[in-house]
Amino acid sequence: MPETPLDLALDAARVTAQLVDFPSESGTEKPLADAVEAALRALPHLTVDRYGNNVVARTNLGRAERVILAGHIDTVPIADNVPSRLDEDGVLWGCGTCDMKSGVAVQLRIAQTVTEPNRDLTFVFYDNEEVAAHLNGLGHVAEAHPEWIEGDFAVLLEPTDGEVEGGCQGTLRVLLKVTGERAHSARAWMGDNAIHKAAPILARLAAYEPRTPEVDGLRFHEGLNAVRIEGGVATNVIPDACTVTVNFRYAPDRTEEEAEAFVRDYFADCGVEEFIVDDHTGGARPGLNHPAAAAFMAAVGGEARPKFGWTDVSRFSALGVPAVNYGPGEPLLAHKADERVQTSKVLAAEERLRAWLTS
Amino acid sequence: MPETPLDLALDAARVTAQLVDFPSESGTEKPLADAVEAALRALPHLTVDRYGNNVVARTNLGRAERVILAGHIDTVPIADNVPSRLDEDGVLWGCGTCDMKSGVAVQLRIAQTVTEPNRDLTFVFYDNEEVAAHLNGLGHVAEAHPEWIEGDFAVLLEPTDGEVEGGCQGTLRVLLKVTGERAHSARAWMGDNAIHKAAPILARLAAYEPRTPEVDGLRFHEGLNAVRIEGGVATNVIPDACTVTVNFRYAPDRTEEEAEAFVRDYFADCGVEEFIVDDHTGGARPGLNHPAAAAFMAAVGGEARPKFGWTDVSRFSALGVPAVNYGPGEPLLAHKADERVQTSKVLAAEERLRAWLTS
Repeated sequence: MPETPLDLALDAARVTAQLVDFPSESGTEKPLADAVEAALRALPHLTVDRYGNNVVARTNLGRAERVILAGHIDTVPIADNVPSRLDEDGVLWGCGTCDMKSGVAVQLRIAQTVTEPNRDLTFVFYDNEEVAAHLNGLGHVAEAHPEWIEGDFAVLLEPTDGEVEGGCQGTLRVLLKVTGERAHSARAWMGDNAIHKAAPILARLAAYEPRTPEVDGLRFHEGLNAVRIEGGVATNVIPDACTVTVNFRYAPDRTEEEAEAFVRDYFADCGVEEFIVDDHTGGARPGLNHPAAAAFMAAVGGEARPKFGWTDVSRFSALGVPAVNYGPGEPLLAHKADERVQTSKVLAAEERLRAWLTS
Repeated sequence: MPETPLDLALDAARVTAQLVDFPSESGTEKPLADAVEAALRALPHLTVDRYGNNVVARTNLGRAERVILAGHIDTVPIADNVPSRLDEDGVLWGCGTCDMKSGVAVQLRIAQTVTEPNRDLTFVFYDNEEVAAHLNGLGHVAEAHPEWIEGDFAVLLEPTDGEVEGGCQGTLRVLLKVTGERAHSARAWMGDNAIHKAAPILARLAAYEPRTPEVDGLRFHEGLNAVRIEGGVATNVIPDACTVTVNFRYAPDRTEEEAEAFVRDYFADCGVEEFIVDDHTGGARPGLNHPAAAAFMAAVGGEARPKFGWTDVSRFSALGVPAVNYGPGEPLLAHKADERVQTSKVLAAEERLRAWLTS
């Protein structure tokens, strides 16, 4: 039994405040995971599993569809902004209010109150989202217990200001290397300048025209950019190596293989001597054509927007589960010392999800 | 009186060995400067001046011409190669044998033996040549006592393998900066990629065709090269700055102003936003058309070669004294642990200079 139990009988705004007052910077989530697990185990309509500091709770009603509500329980480092503070305008201030304890509070309130959902429900609470990808708890669960997170459609309650953000773009990082030969710069003709040989690569990058395909009804926007360039030995030496680091952000209608092939081909005639894939994670289609997603859109209203950045929806997508982001926080306030959330938006998110899952 | 006096009655090879056995890494030249000063003060045909650890000795015979023989007395750090060792093939091994105590030995032998030269002579022995330019003793003398080093022609006894190397090229280093605007690389269109904006600069560099002008009968060879390129904030950020460091090595028929104007003009249409002169030292004409130089060439024989790198002859040139490099060491052996000099070449250099100054 954790020292400070969570009271899920309160409304989602008050549950958010309880969660914020339970510090859980990445790597220190155990006490909060204990509290979440204990609160869920108290609910007889759920079966609860735990793996590390990741907690998964499920209904088992034999419904035709299963949907997943997922959220991370960690926060970025506290910036003298805990405990939470509710001001007279109904704004709750504090670390995690926006990203994403308000979303986690909505998950917990649905778990507490929707005991007879129209679709089977899976609640996922995971750790280490705000740090290196290999630490991510959702990734660990997907690897160790993929059957825990099977489903037809997933909603991540990341901050989206109450709008639905669908899918995500893939991101590929490659190192393009050109080499030359060193020489004293007073006798440059004895060497071969590798920085000069990077000229065609930069020219190709400068000439790039982004593709903006529509995928499942959402307009994505690709990007191909140098994010770093390095070359040089000393100020009197002709450099023998130059490396351009390129980041390709691509729409989810390309597979990882297609994305890599595109970049290789794009720089094919630029004299690249080494092409090194430094990092690669695929995108995720929005999946809004699925019936559960359509019903979700009807319940929450508004128009879905494409998600340009990479998010954990991609992990669901890799498991064959279409996923969207939908949460009460304002994304631009995430990770800020003045992080906050409008409590009315937290309550609205709870109501809309309940409507979807009980209508 | 120094503890270990120099014996200038020995031949130049043996004087070289004495000098090598007198450690004088840059910054620690005082004992050797003391010994050189004492040896020169013992010669009644010379007047001797000292400034710091720099020693200047002159004849004052009222000859029509005055020539300067100059050399630095410091070495790079000793690499377990002192004291000197003479092998059975007549090769003298040790730190400074090549660069340039063999040249200094030739200067001292000429000072000792040529008491009635056909041209007035100035001998310059200076410190801190192997370290930062602002420490260079020849520069300090030129600033404090330019009248000590007035003359019609100068020979620096730097290692040239017994060939005459004339003049030197100038060197200009500039930073070419382009700027952009940061954005998350998932939303690249919100920013402006500074690395891409460097593409025209690299293309201009790659298209450069070097000039190879003949100056005073020597064929120089210019060079315009990127020696460093830097740009990048993080692998998910559109970079807002990129800097290309360019080194222009130019023939001595250009003034410093002309060289800088050339580079500014060369990149005029490449979108450079900041043009920063980071370092600039002018070149030196070979001066081989001067009568003293012509006589020198006739005495030492061979054909003069252009000097591509920057050397201290440029300091003489700035004072209006044409200068060449001519010394017994093999330049490629300078600064090496297996530094050495062929003693027959040291004796030959001494003989040739004596022939020039006594014929």
